[in-house]
Amino acid sequence: MPSPFIHPLSDCQSTKIGNRTRVWQFSVVLSDAVIGNDCNICSHCFIENDVVVGNRVTVKCGVQLWDGIRVEDDVFIGPNVTFTNDRFPRSQQYPDRFAQTVIKRGASIGANATLLPGITVGQDAMVGAGSVVTADVPPGAVVVGNPAKAIRHCHNEEDSRKECDR
Amino acid sequence: MPSPFIHPLSDCQSTKIGNRTRVWQFSVVLSDAVIGNDCNICSHCFIENDVVVGNRVTVKCGVQLWDGIRVEDDVFIGPNVTFTNDRFPRSQQYPDRFAQTVIKRGASIGANATLLPGITVGQDAMVGAGSVVTADVPPGAVVVGNPAKAIRHCHNEEDSRKECDR
Amino acid sequence: MPSPFIHPLSDCQSTKIGNRTRVWQFSVVLSDAVIGNDCNICSHCFIENDVVVGNRVTVKCGVQLWDGIRVEDDVFIGPNVTFTNDRFPRSQQYPDRFAQTVIKRGASIGANATLLPGITVGQDAMVGAGSVVTADVPPGAVVVGNPAKAIRHCHNEEDSRKECDR
Repeated sequence: MPSPFIHPLSDCQSTKIGNRTRVWQFSVVLSDAVIGNDCNICSHCFIENDVVVGNRVTVKCGVQLWDGIRVEDDVFIGPNVTFTNDRFPRSQQYPDRFAQTVIKRGASIGANATLLPGITVGQDAMVGAGSVVTADVPPGAVVVGNPAKAIRHCHNEEDSRKECDR
Repeated sequence: MPSPFIHPLSDCQSTKIGNRTRVWQFSVVLSDAVIGNDCNICSHCFIENDVVVGNRVTVKCGVQLWDGIRVEDDVFIGPNVTFTNDRFPRSQQYPDRFAQTVIKRGASIGANATLLPGITVGQDAMVGAGSVVTADVPPGAVVVGNPAKAIRHCHNEEDSRKECDR
Repeated sequence: MPSPFIHPLSDCQSTKIGNRTRVWQFSVVLSDAVIGNDCNICSHCFIENDVVVGNRVTVKCGVQLWDGIRVEDDVFIGPNVTFTNDRFPRSQQYPDRFAQTVIKRGASIGANATLLPGITVGQDAMVGAGSVVTADVPPGAVVVGNPAKAIRHCHNEEDSRKECDR
């Protein structure tokens, strides 16, 4: 399959979607979004224009990626994870520039987590399900809670599976 | 554009939608819902029948507005914000009357916040992203956390942008 | 109506859906999912294959039921409730076996709650809106917060309506 799979029930307007990437039902991808190879964009997602997604990224159902979001290779974004790009949103008033969110290579964002604007989540870090992330997450950190705090630092992925119980 | 824009991939059953209001992909609007002028109803929303939305309101993706919800002018409702109208929900058992939620003029509800039933959010108030709102929010207050507590009171919108850092 | 109602704007691939159950707009149900009688699957849901749902269950908008989830009779699952089945998710790496989540008969999961993998919610228990459930919930318990803690035990549903104010 040397091309992406775009489900006919999606509204995928971008042609910058890598090989073997799948875009599922009822997801919307605007025309300037760039998505790498071997990704899985599950159902009910919305991906705006100024978005770059790397390779082998999983975006589960119900996630929106707004202008200014950068997602590096091998990132996992859980279902209903919610990003933001405006610190003090008011209807129909826009900041001069949207805050940038960066999810570094190999990081995982747990289900239904909320990320405030301008956050960087470090390489291989893990955000616990339901957390509210109000500050940058260091590489390898595991953060949980509202506001999210580090409970552990994992030096590699095997660590994160073995020791990072909550 | 003297009429609303209803995206052909939405299921908008109401004809009471104001001029220049936009209803986007995969959103559902039931037939008795009333929506004002110049609103933006983003993708993947669901708006029930007994709902009144004012003018210049933004409803981001993944939001449901249930029977009994009133949204005044210039309100911002962030992505995946979740409303409720039954304090003790049980499957297929309905209260005599659904609790009413009122979002007053100019208020902002941050991304992925949860509002318990019967809440009033005051004029120009701001609910932080990921908060769980269990009590009324006074006008101009900024509330965050689970349960949400006031961290500041802003007398106007410029205040809220300048001082209300978390 | 001796058969289910499947909305034409859904993508329902299963034929194992009980009588009078309704599947609404923009929901996806994969082919092996089993859903009982008299259920209501609201809009924007996603139901995977290895899922069994009982009778008279309500699943509100924006909910995903992943492989390994079992939902017994008379359960209420609020809007945007988020389930999980992998404790340490990494993109494109899968556990040997997905953690099982069981929601016992008559339980209610409040709006936008998050359930960590492998949780059992006991009979008639109630999870408060916006809670993050990190441990099993005993039968009849009412839990709230992040992480969710019990605030009351209700011996029957009338109790839960009368006494379980937060």
